[in-house]
Amino acid sequence: MTGAGRLSTAARAIVAGDRRALARAITAIENGDSAAEPVLRSLYPRTRGIPVVGFTGPLGVGKSSLINALVGLLRDRGRTVGIVAVDPSSPFSGGSVLGDRIRLDRPADDTGIYFRSMASRGAAGGVAAATLEIARLLDAAGFDFVLVETVGSGQVDVAIREIASTSIVVLVPHLGDEVQTLKAGMFEIADVFCVNKSDLPGADLARKDLADLVSLGRAEGRWAPAIVLTSTVEPMGIDGLWRAVEAHEKFLDDSGERRAGERRRLANEIVGLVRDRVGRDLTARLEADPKLRSLLDRVVARSLDPRAAAEQLLIRGRRAR
Amino acid sequence: MTGAGRLSTAARAIVAGDRRALARAITAIENGDSAAEPVLRSLYPRTRGIPVVGFTGPLGVGKSSLINALVGLLRDRGRTVGIVAVDPSSPFSGGSVLGDRIRLDRPADDTGIYFRSMASRGAAGGVAAATLEIARLLDAAGFDFVLVETVGSGQVDVAIREIASTSIVVLVPHLGDEVQTLKAGMFEIADVFCVNKSDLPGADLARKDLADLVSLGRAEGRWAPAIVLTSTVEPMGIDGLWRAVEAHEKFLDDSGERRAGERRRLANEIVGLVRDRVGRDLTARLEADPKLRSLLDRVVARSLDPRAAAEQLLIRGRRAR
Repeated sequence: MTGAGRLSTAARAIVAGDRRALARAITAIENGDSAAEPVLRSLYPRTRGIPVVGFTGPLGVGKSSLINALVGLLRDRGRTVGIVAVDPSSPFSGGSVLGDRIRLDRPADDTGIYFRSMASRGAAGGVAAATLEIARLLDAAGFDFVLVETVGSGQVDVAIREIASTSIVVLVPHLGDEVQTLKAGMFEIADVFCVNKSDLPGADLARKDLADLVSLGRAEGRWAPAIVLTSTVEPMGIDGLWRAVEAHEKFLDDSGERRAGERRRLANEIVGLVRDRVGRDLTARLEADPKLRSLLDRVVARSLDPRAAAEQLLIRGRRAR
Repeated sequence: MTGAGRLSTAARAIVAGDRRALARAITAIENGDSAAEPVLRSLYPRTRGIPVVGFTGPLGVGKSSLINALVGLLRDRGRTVGIVAVDPSSPFSGGSVLGDRIRLDRPADDTGIYFRSMASRGAAGGVAAATLEIARLLDAAGFDFVLVETVGSGQVDVAIREIASTSIVVLVPHLGDEVQTLKAGMFEIADVFCVNKSDLPGADLARKDLADLVSLGRAEGRWAPAIVLTSTVEPMGIDGLWRAVEAHEKFLDDSGERRAGERRRLANEIVGLVRDRVGRDLTARLEADPKLRSLLDRVVARSLDPRAAAEQLLIRGRRAR
């Protein structure tokens, strides 16, 4: 990848390792500020498609401590890492209310890590789209890996698939009984199951339950989710967890899944951008354009239903353009 | 509202009070099944725009118990009520993991209530759109009120504004200190603040903190959020909570806000339907249409960035149609 084309001052600063320029660009993304666009555009050719590792799971399973431990391991090995903690777009910050925040045990002057917590209500295309763009900036800024934590539970959990190349579902032993009832959706998400707090009783049972479930979904040529027991108290299993991530990343390369997954994610991103733009334009026109306003009047009056109105708008859009 | 037009068998059954027909239509909405469409369309003229009361707030504040108490009060008064518990679209059902489920203390043969829990991952336009349509079915089925609970926290919380005519933000006394740090978004949502578990210490302080915040946002002609202390243990304040709901619903009628709010919600719903349809169509065409596929190829190859690709698609859409 050459991508040595014209870079704006901000983009050049980010590539050169200027963390304040990076922070400003991320803030612009968070706020849905159009100032982020030229930076994102000019840096896109510089991105290499580095591994993005997503962490999701119920509240209180210790995702933050796990990430802290992994960051320590990666820094000890001389690897650089960007961390994004995504707070679901809620006025009740799961983070601040529940105290579930990443606290990194790293020297403040360690330039090999960059941590950013994002409570994104403003981001135009939603939290997932903003996170994807932030991961891309971290890629262009030269980091080796990006770790993404979804704070709390909610729709972002499922969206991790749209962001991460490897998704880790974090559970704890005493959820062992619950694993049976957890929805199948977990298996669409998990590349790695991590049973954290495995110093607590029941870890082996949880592993067995997960292994049984994994074996049910096993298919030739497909990745079978790895199961790793960890504890950040002991600590234990942190290197094993990273080995599982590396194994999955290698599988992505060997199987061609990396290219396929990236293509799928980019397609979804482009569709999302088009969809949001169409939505914004239509919202503006719905009250400004007299014909569209009278359509809405009829829906309010119950003489036309919302789906019929939507269909008329789609047909009108095809004709008028 | 006459709406005596042709109704399908399913629609007629729902209007006649057939709960199994109602349940089937709701399931179809949940699954994004097109079988729901004709039912929704033919019933739309039958809807009256009944009050839809939304409950949101952090986990563990007792929303479910509160709803259970309100249902008791409403049934004692001979009013009928539909309840929808919305589970954010997550594989980790906040409900099942955390046991935060509505358990109604009502006779099983009470036909004056209808309860439905919705864990909607399949619904086409997302959880909020599906909930809106379910509330509309309950309206057409003749219920006096719909209560909507968002289980857990997440994006659905904010979306309650798109569903409910009155939104109740439920807090508890020991969150008193946190109220100061809760984001301003809470005030965009709350028509009523409910301090539940007010048998616990700190309820009066929480009320005072909320009253201070409410007074800051007070404006002529606008609704000032009511603050109600409740306890489902004592029980206490349940009738006061419902009076606050009724007062807000009366304000909506007197101020013209009901019409304005309904119009805004319908506009958003129509825009959402158009946006989703455009997105689905584009997703299909992006791999099927050779021109669009080559556009995606260029994004994958980093020679075109996603936003530029989206812009080209928007321009192409305008020209081609």
